[in-house]
Amino acid sequence: MGVVVSLDEGKKGEASVKPLVDLTAADMARVNELILSKAGSDVEMIPEIANHLISSGGKRLRPMITLAAARMFGYSGDGHIKLATSVEFMHTATLLHDDVVDESDMRRGKQTARMVWGNQASVLVGDFLLGQAFRMMVEVGSLKALDILATAASVIAEGEVWQLAAAKNLETTEDEYLAVIKAKTAALFSAAAEVGPVIAQAGRAEQAALRSYGTNLGLAFQLIDDALDYGGNARDLGKNTGDDFREGKVTLPVILSYRRGTAAERAFWKTAIEDGVNDDAALDKAMGLMTRYNAIGETISRARHFGNIAADALAPLGDTPQRDAMLEVIDFCISRVN
Amino acid sequence: MGVVVSLDEGKKGEASVKPLVDLTAADMARVNELILSKAGSDVEMIPEIANHLISSGGKRLRPMITLAAARMFGYSGDGHIKLATSVEFMHTATLLHDDVVDESDMRRGKQTARMVWGNQASVLVGDFLLGQAFRMMVEVGSLKALDILATAASVIAEGEVWQLAAAKNLETTEDEYLAVIKAKTAALFSAAAEVGPVIAQAGRAEQAALRSYGTNLGLAFQLIDDALDYGGNARDLGKNTGDDFREGKVTLPVILSYRRGTAAERAFWKTAIEDGVNDDAALDKAMGLMTRYNAIGETISRARHFGNIAADALAPLGDTPQRDAMLEVIDFCISRVN
Repeated sequence: MGVVVSLDEGKKGEASVKPLVDLTAADMARVNELILSKAGSDVEMIPEIANHLISSGGKRLRPMITLAAARMFGYSGDGHIKLATSVEFMHTATLLHDDVVDESDMRRGKQTARMVWGNQASVLVGDFLLGQAFRMMVEVGSLKALDILATAASVIAEGEVWQLAAAKNLETTEDEYLAVIKAKTAALFSAAAEVGPVIAQAGRAEQAALRSYGTNLGLAFQLIDDALDYGGNARDLGKNTGDDFREGKVTLPVILSYRRGTAAERAFWKTAIEDGVNDDAALDKAMGLMTRYNAIGETISRARHFGNIAADALAPLGDTPQRDAMLEVIDFCISRVN
Repeated sequence: MGVVVSLDEGKKGEASVKPLVDLTAADMARVNELILSKAGSDVEMIPEIANHLISSGGKRLRPMITLAAARMFGYSGDGHIKLATSVEFMHTATLLHDDVVDESDMRRGKQTARMVWGNQASVLVGDFLLGQAFRMMVEVGSLKALDILATAASVIAEGEVWQLAAAKNLETTEDEYLAVIKAKTAALFSAAAEVGPVIAQAGRAEQAALRSYGTNLGLAFQLIDDALDYGGNARDLGKNTGDDFREGKVTLPVILSYRRGTAAERAFWKTAIEDGVNDDAALDKAMGLMTRYNAIGETISRARHFGNIAADALAPLGDTPQRDAMLEVIDFCISRVN
């Protein structure tokens, strides 16, 4: 059995995505070829925009999970290549639309597509990639996999609208926030993992295990992202500390600080998040309050909680290198924060 | 055999969509129920926006075509209800995104969703409806129908990007323009028609006939729309005459006037379309030039050309009320211009 890195606080920072990268390297080379080919078009703006995002240094965690989840159950066809590519296209389409919705200027240290080519092109190229994703899924021919991914597409969008409707609402509870990120982030991780056993024709228990792994890994991933936004540094992250704050996003660190704060502190949060008084002084004060109430530490604890559920979901499965690599990814996602 | 209205110029204005409406009334009642149910969400903004568009008086030509195209070949299941609803959702999603891309204020005499709820919500609710459309298609379980509709989704988006990239380019040829509208408008009509024989398990010839009908009807429909934008009146159309002009859209009436014009007139078009000098005086001048070169009349002739191809596509099919109603719809689409 490979290294299963403990999720205990004492062992942070040792986990790596490398075992997963190595295990899926041959398949990922084919995914990368398919990405380039299916993002191709005589309309030059399409491959330009698609490649801007696709080549901008994402880890491609989601397609690697699809590949490993299929191989783990002995899948030997090539449908997993197309499904993994579809998953990455769905993710890319979501990023394009998100950047328009959030009016973001930077992503992973580069200008967003909407800053280079405009909001209009970002919306339409996102639509194109989503269409291409569905075409590839149809080629694979598994109605079950199609159902899982189509449902995810719909759930993700619903989660995004929900988040938009609840934007700047400091009364958002932790439960409500979790429901939003379950839809907007975890649903794609969940679908990416679940379609593996589905095309490998594994059993229902295996399918449920991978779905649970994906969902909980996605929740942990998003919560760490939320923590990083207040704790990382711009060069490492490719985004500036406090972006979420400046955009008035109510993420878990804010929710915890707000709920645990005094009346005066809650008034500060209202001014900062709802009225948009979010200059550097306000950000400093916000980060001070987060420290006072251990909001970042608690957000990371919550992430670790979901990480543990994800690990237990895979626990009863047979001992495979894929399982071990996927277990290590949980801790890798959480250790990003250190 | 029902009334097949001649497409000759002499018989304009007699055709009606009523036979198609009557034939599909019972099925459309089920489509309307499914629309309401599948546009439902606990996130209130979703049904609000969806219903704003869905209830705003569109003719629902595309879903009626799907229903008639399935019944025409004796289809007796209920997959056509779901496919017709999917087609309408794809159309609605496209409208939501189009209005954002075109920065449109009005559609069918009402404020656009983006004016009421914002661009962000319009993008995301469009994504949600597209996801719901794919889920319904998956429920029907026909991989062939899924392939046709997923391909259409991708082609439509590609056409829109193409149009955006070629925006305000007066050197666009008629051929290039036709390729754009074939993708952005005709592809959905084509798919809407083609999935009928597909789920009814009709033959390849029947499938090809309906695809050709849809494509050519869609081309005619868009060209008449282009003509109407310079010739209708605001109250009837729910949009203002000259909207395309003010948005700098290079449609066929502009292409023909530009290509047939003098050097001085071409300079006027450059100023109007490329430099955005498009006030009422410029619009008057543009419409004067269109009259001089019969650009509206020729656009309508082009539409009639495609209408004739659509009619001939259905000609060899058996004599059914659906076929007759679909033939009459061609002339109805063209007669809107009178």
